[in-house]
Amino acid sequence: MPQLRKDPITNRWVIVNVEKPAAADSFFSATAAKSSKTCPFCPGNESMTPPEIFSIQKKGAVKSASAWQVRVFPNKFPALRIEESPDKYAFGIYDKIGGFGAHEVIVENPDHQKEIPQLSLEEVQLILRACRERCLDLRKDTRFKYILIFKNYGAAAGASLEHPHSQLIALPVVPSRVLGEIKGALKHFEYTDRCVYCDMLNQERAEQALTVFEDADFTALCPFVSRFPFETWILPKVYEASFDALSDEGIKSLARALKATLAKIQTALKDCSFNWMIHTLPLHGKEFESFHWHMEIIPHLTQVAGFEWGTGFYVNPTPPELAAVTLRNVPVNF
Amino acid sequence: MPQLRKDPITNRWVIVNVEKPAAADSFFSATAAKSSKTCPFCPGNESMTPPEIFSIQKKGAVKSASAWQVRVFPNKFPALRIEESPDKYAFGIYDKIGGFGAHEVIVENPDHQKEIPQLSLEEVQLILRACRERCLDLRKDTRFKYILIFKNYGAAAGASLEHPHSQLIALPVVPSRVLGEIKGALKHFEYTDRCVYCDMLNQERAEQALTVFEDADFTALCPFVSRFPFETWILPKVYEASFDALSDEGIKSLARALKATLAKIQTALKDCSFNWMIHTLPLHGKEFESFHWHMEIIPHLTQVAGFEWGTGFYVNPTPPELAAVTLRNVPVNF
Repeated sequence: MPQLRKDPITNRWVIVNVEKPAAADSFFSATAAKSSKTCPFCPGNESMTPPEIFSIQKKGAVKSASAWQVRVFPNKFPALRIEESPDKYAFGIYDKIGGFGAHEVIVENPDHQKEIPQLSLEEVQLILRACRERCLDLRKDTRFKYILIFKNYGAAAGASLEHPHSQLIALPVVPSRVLGEIKGALKHFEYTDRCVYCDMLNQERAEQALTVFEDADFTALCPFVSRFPFETWILPKVYEASFDALSDEGIKSLARALKATLAKIQTALKDCSFNWMIHTLPLHGKEFESFHWHMEIIPHLTQVAGFEWGTGFYVNPTPPELAAVTLRNVPVNF
Repeated sequence: MPQLRKDPITNRWVIVNVEKPAAADSFFSATAAKSSKTCPFCPGNESMTPPEIFSIQKKGAVKSASAWQVRVFPNKFPALRIEESPDKYAFGIYDKIGGFGAHEVIVENPDHQKEIPQLSLEEVQLILRACRERCLDLRKDTRFKYILIFKNYGAAAGASLEHPHSQLIALPVVPSRVLGEIKGALKHFEYTDRCVYCDMLNQERAEQALTVFEDADFTALCPFVSRFPFETWILPKVYEASFDALSDEGIKSLARALKATLAKIQTALKDCSFNWMIHTLPLHGKEFESFHWHMEIIPHLTQVAGFEWGTGFYVNPTPPELAAVTLRNVPVNF
């Protein structure tokens, strides 16, 4: 079974694959051959994946196993599994937990070639609806403490399969990075009585330097302290702590902001690899009411090197002001 | 000038290149051509680099500008510069500092092809001596708060030049990741009255599961909570907070441990890209006496993906116990 181990110095958690460990040689086998194989995420190949957990059927299609528009199932090679124990125990100075958790794949649409910028707004809404529904369902299991929804696009961003998909991982602990963000936001709130993310939006409203896309409900901007060139965040304009509190109307707006932002990035950065992650409040986190959910998009244009690993400092060759004006100027067709 | 910006949420610092900003197109130019050019780090090409700060001459060679064994000079494209101001100021909710700092290149030996595993123990000692001397010299400038020495090897680890070299960055602030480690070690110390790194070494002394190399002075091991496959740390057995407190005898031992460890990694992992970083106490950090300096070596075999960026959780496909036995079993010739 997988195992969660906690670093006693930094409180960082690591999921260690003690079940099917990867030996040194396994990192050097030819992986390029993969894409020529049958795609397990394409319609008609549903039997190649674990059984479906959730799906949204194609409008007007005759009901069948392959008539889905969005499809969710457990990851075939999960980092964590719902059958494992969430019990915590010590191993000398270290902490361990069995590999309890959920790891799901969200296939974004039936077409192997269509990423979000190529989908209609209605199709993007269905992906976001599936994400929200899975969160609301997993919330019922109180052993889960945090849900991360994320996407790896392109090999440099860690994607191993081409077919457009995102992933969901539900964890039995609140990760240290999330806790750090929440504590930072709380500290700002205690000091100023204001949400730090709202402050960020308000400062940008005055400066008009970092905005990539904006409508009545969402702002996409390159944060003033961007770690990476062309890093872009999408934030709801009205304060809300949890992603899954999003209304149907909110999903409509977010679909627009997400499609616009990803289309701009795809065009300006020549379809480069990227990750996006939804940052949201832990599941039972009443005490953290100063948090403001948002999406972070990280294009992969540079390598994280020794300086970053050694210090947590980042070196960003592209000022976010320049990244923002570049992305802002890319026209988008909805 | 470069600019340091601080994230108000996570206290993370970013160095932003506002002087020669990289536009979107710059990331897609052909960089592979670089290696065919004249190497600015090879003997005879000293005029291609900024003026030398420090060097160790070749034993017995006739004195000349090219008769060096190790050579240190300012980075031609520095992330930070010693001429800039270290003054801090606010920009709305953000903090900024001018790009004050030092960024130096340590050319490890005259031979373009020889990395540490291919050098003699005496030659490796000279690299470490140069690192120590530069730290001791930079300590005299009290505007510096932290010094990081690190190496990027291979394109995937962020190296842009082939000739064997490492780098030094002196910073006007203590980076958040370093502070996090120090606070974690201090917390453990306050709770247990023991150094957490000594505890780590003692637990391994009992378990005998993670050791890669060991002699009277140093232990190289794959930490129990390794983030990456084959991550390896080198720790002095006797507690010492700062790297630059190392004696000449200590340098002899470290050269042996470092050469052995890098040789094992190079052989077992087919000369893959890696970073190493020296984690040491901040320069004026009397209050942090529970810290224990060490080197961290991170081979690049997997991609950091959305899950890691979103949570700070890492997924490690290779249990450190397996990595350690693999590396331990690689024979080394000194």
